[in-house]
Amino acid sequence: MSKKRDDIIDTTSDLLERQGYFATGLNQIVEESGAPKGSLYYYFPGGKDEICEEAIRRSGASLEKSIDRAMSEADTAAEGIAALVEGISRAMEASNFGAGGPLTTVATETAGQNERLNNACEEIYESWRATFERYIRKDGIDSIRAERLSTLVLATMEGAIILSRTYKSTEPLQRAGAELRELLEFAR
Amino acid sequence: MSKKRDDIIDTTSDLLERQGYFATGLNQIVEESGAPKGSLYYYFPGGKDEICEEAIRRSGASLEKSIDRAMSEADTAAEGIAALVEGISRAMEASNFGAGGPLTTVATETAGQNERLNNACEEIYESWRATFERYIRKDGIDSIRAERLSTLVLATMEGAIILSRTYKSTEPLQRAGAELRELLEFAR
Repeated sequence: MSKKRDDIIDTTSDLLERQGYFATGLNQIVEESGAPKGSLYYYFPGGKDEICEEAIRRSGASLEKSIDRAMSEADTAAEGIAALVEGISRAMEASNFGAGGPLTTVATETAGQNERLNNACEEIYESWRATFERYIRKDGIDSIRAERLSTLVLATMEGAIILSRTYKSTEPLQRAGAELRELLEFAR
Repeated sequence: MSKKRDDIIDTTSDLLERQGYFATGLNQIVEESGAPKGSLYYYFPGGKDEICEEAIRRSGASLEKSIDRAMSEADTAAEGIAALVEGISRAMEASNFGAGGPLTTVATETAGQNERLNNACEEIYESWRATFERYIRKDGIDSIRAERLSTLVLATMEGAIILSRTYKSTEPLQRAGAELRELLEFAR
């Protein structure tokens, strides 16, 4: 992997996270990554959408690893969610609520009008959901319920992160996480 | 209230819902509302941010009425949520998943960088949450738990609508809604 290519993707990921898809232009990516404009087109002949797709896929894979780590180290899905909520809360505070994953903004901005990025968002969400489902099933919960619960967990985490970013407080995430934990404990 | 002013706000609300804050420019608002550019500045001397704030406040108040209606007509909070999920699912299908409220996109795009719109988003979210809390407390649930549950409900609805828009299917909303209903029934 080329370092220049990596820098371009990481810079784009940061920009998408802070401000979203529409506000992020190629010129800003060039400026902030320090990569010459020619190298952008060399590495990404598909232009902005190709760079954005790579950026959300990379950060999606990285968050999936964090989910997997938190869930695999815990004894139950409920405890795994609690650890994940703690980890995300700390990351949000450390970034002064600038962080929260680039996916949400890109997903809401492009849902109806950019098939390439919409498909990428759907694949990433579905992959996160399947990870939650795998660990919920380990608790002995049947597959139909585990599918429902994993959808609830993913939706709640998404929404709670938006609320926490908006309120500039981890409280929404903490409160929603406490209820998720209770529900997952009870479902076993 | 002036009809021209109303048209400008409604057009902006639609545009924010379909594409978000950054992609929505004053020229597009002028074009699609049919209002002369001069009237934009006459009614909204604060420019784009003033129009956007009015648009999200108006659609926030309108959704709050829908929440209040669904919850007040039901016997329990759980049944109210089920009715709300049905109503939102139908509206999403009717709009071919273009609808989903302008607030989410604006909230994620502006969280870290536009205090005026960030404050408006926070006030609207908090007002929706308080509405859910009021009805959850009517079920006899104590105030600390009702605060937690109302945060969970709001976060889940937010996240599930994003997933449903991304998947172009009401299934995420239906699945998450079924689990919310179960939790609210059990908490009574």
